[in-house]
Order: sequence, then structure tokens, then C-alpha cells
Amino acid sequence: MKETMIPGYTYGSREVARSPLSLSDLELLKKTVMFGDEDVYYLRMSHDVLKPHVSELVKTWYDFIGANPQLLAAFSTPDGRPIPEYLERVRERFEQWILDTARAEYDHAWLDYQYEIGLRHYRTKKNRTDDVEAMDIVPFRYLFLLLVPVLYTMKPYLERDGRSDVDVQRMFEAWQKSVLLQLTLWSQPYLRPEDF
Amino acid sequence: MKETMIPGYTYGSREVARSPLSLSDLELLKKTVMFGDEDVYYLRMSHDVLKPHVSELVKTWYDFIGANPQLLAAFSTPDGRPIPEYLERVRERFEQWILDTARAEYDHAWLDYQYEIGLRHYRTKKNRTDDVEAMDIVPFRYLFLLLVPVLYTMKPYLERDGRSDVDVQRMFEAWQKSVLLQLTLWSQPYLRPEDF
Repeated sequence: MKETMIPGYTYGSREVARSPLSLSDLELLKKTVMFGDEDVYYLRMSHDVLKPHVSELVKTWYDFIGANPQLLAAFSTPDGRPIPEYLERVRERFEQWILDTARAEYDHAWLDYQYEIGLRHYRTKKNRTDDVEAMDIVPFRYLFLLLVPVLYTMKPYLERDGRSDVDVQRMFEAWQKSVLLQLTLWSQPYLRPEDF
Repeated sequence: MKETMIPGYTYGSREVARSPLSLSDLELLKKTVMFGDEDVYYLRMSHDVLKPHVSELVKTWYDFIGANPQLLAAFSTPDGRPIPEYLERVRERFEQWILDTARAEYDHAWLDYQYEIGLRHYRTKKNRTDDVEAMDIVPFRYLFLLLVPVLYTMKPYLERDGRSDVDVQRMFEAWQKSVLLQLTLWSQPYLRPEDF
């Protein structure tokens, strides 16, 4: 958990709902996505590589969202007016998300916070954290597809620290696996419990 | 469509349900996953590269499924006995899926067949095509995660044809985008229409 206060950032706090998944459920997800100790190692390597660049990186994601009305809609009123204050409120949590992913302490507190993030994408909690009146869901259809813009814009930053090509490639792959894992966890509130 | 008969392979036939998505919906998905003409070009390049190896490739996927009880469950009875005939029936469709993805004719017939594949993963049509009494759903939680074993085992085969590193990388990336796109389309029956 970051020491400074980030609005709406509740990782590790009692306000976070408890994930319906157990750590052994998580193990099976990790096995399926071939996520192992090596991935933890390379994610942690990426932490200090990415840290100086998190604002710039999130800016590139915001540029992508801004250029894609179908994505900007989730940060807009139901009739389509973008809410700049909403985007600003979320920005620091996005930056912190990069560091939390790279820290790779995927324990129960982390699992719970992934569930919380899912609830905030779905109708269950969307907009409440930031007290805005935006579209009440991030449509499922765009959720996993965002892996590509998020990861591909990250790659040049993984290369900036002068690590070997192998290290850059492994960090990139570890990130892919982790993001797929997280997107799966964020999807849970969208699914009927028996279908998940 | 392949000329030879593959059991249960109905791509392009009248038996396939019509996708609730339009081609302009598909365009927005493609934009989100950054899928463009270059990806079509590289997917088509991969067609002849992969064609001689489809059986071997599907065999590696089956080995992975066999080694992961949480995945083998979808090919097993509800009380957990694997159904070898079911796996065998599906094998040729898996092989054909590689070639269909690489052919990259992502028109309405393709879109409809993606929906059909989704219906066959979900309770709507699971088991019916192959007349088996297996678990009645592929649990959502493993669906997208399979991208990693599927794609990473494919990479060595993309390298076998002596193409340049850049070509191999671009084919791999085009495959990633296409598989994410397809997994998203296959998810549709799992979601409430208004949430998708």
C-alpha cells in the first residue's frame, strides 16, 4: 500500500469486499495462465524500471482512451459528455496499479482488491468511489481487449533501463500473464456465480 | 470452409446462429485491440507456416489440458471421468480453427461462427454438437487465460519456416490480437446482453 493518500485507493483496507475466490482457486488460475515464480521475479524487476515513467505511461493510455469514443464513454455521462474530473480522479490509481502489479504480492489482500476493482467496473460499484454520474458499467466487450494497448505502449518503457533483450521480453510476458489474470478476476461481478 | 467433412464443423452453413453483433460493432472491437490490415497480412502469412504443424500443435494443447485437471473437467463427465471420444471429436475442429484464424476473413460468416463457438462453450449448446454428457459449461474463469498456453506453444512453430525475427514477432502479435478478439466474441453468451 502506498503511504500517500490516493483518492479511492483502498488496497489492504477494511472497506474492501472479500473475494469469493480462495488462494487455491487463484493457484489454478495461475497454472492455467502459466504464471510462476519466474514471472514474480520479472514483475518485480519491472517495478523500478517502470516507476520513473508511470505518469507518462498512464498519459499514453489516456490518449488512447481519448481517441476511442467507445472507451471514453465509460468516463462520460450516459448521454456522452466526458467528465474530465472523473478521469483526473482515476489517474493516480492507474499509476499506483502499475506499481502494485509490479510488486507482485499476490496474496489474499491483493485478491480482495482485484475483486473490488471488478465491482468498480461493474454496475455494483461503478462511479461510487469517485461520486460521479457516468455510464454505470464498463462494457465487458472492451475489457480484455485493452490488454493490447496497455501492454504494447508499456514495452518501450520496459526497454528504457538498459536491461538485456531477454529480461525485457520476460518482463513483458510476466506482465501479460498478470494482466490476463487480473482481467479475469475483474470479470467476476459480470458473471453469474455458477458460470464463473 | 474446408472441403472435407469435419464432425460438427458448420462454419458458413445455415445451421449457425446469427451473431447479435454487427460488423460495425466488430470494427470497434478491432480498434480497441489495435487490430488492423497489417495483422490480417501477418495472420495470412502464418497460414502456410502453421499448416504442416496443426496436428502437432493441437497435440501440445491437449497435453496441457490433460496435465491440468481444472481444464480437463470440461471434457469430463460432471463427476470427473474424462471422455476420450469427446476430445477426439473436437480435435479436427481445433486444427481447422488454426487455419480459419490464419485465413483472417473476418466477415459476417466468421462473426456468426464465433458466436456459435461461444454458444458451444456455454450452457446454451455445450455437448450438443458432439452428443456427449460432459460438464455443461467451460467455466469462464479459464477461458481467456488459455491465451497464454495456446500462443506460447505456437511460437516455436511460427519460427520453423525460416522467416525473419520481425515477421515471426508480427505473426505472433497478430495472433494474440485475433485470439483476444475471438475470446471476447465467445464470451457473449456468458454475459447479460446489457452488460456485454
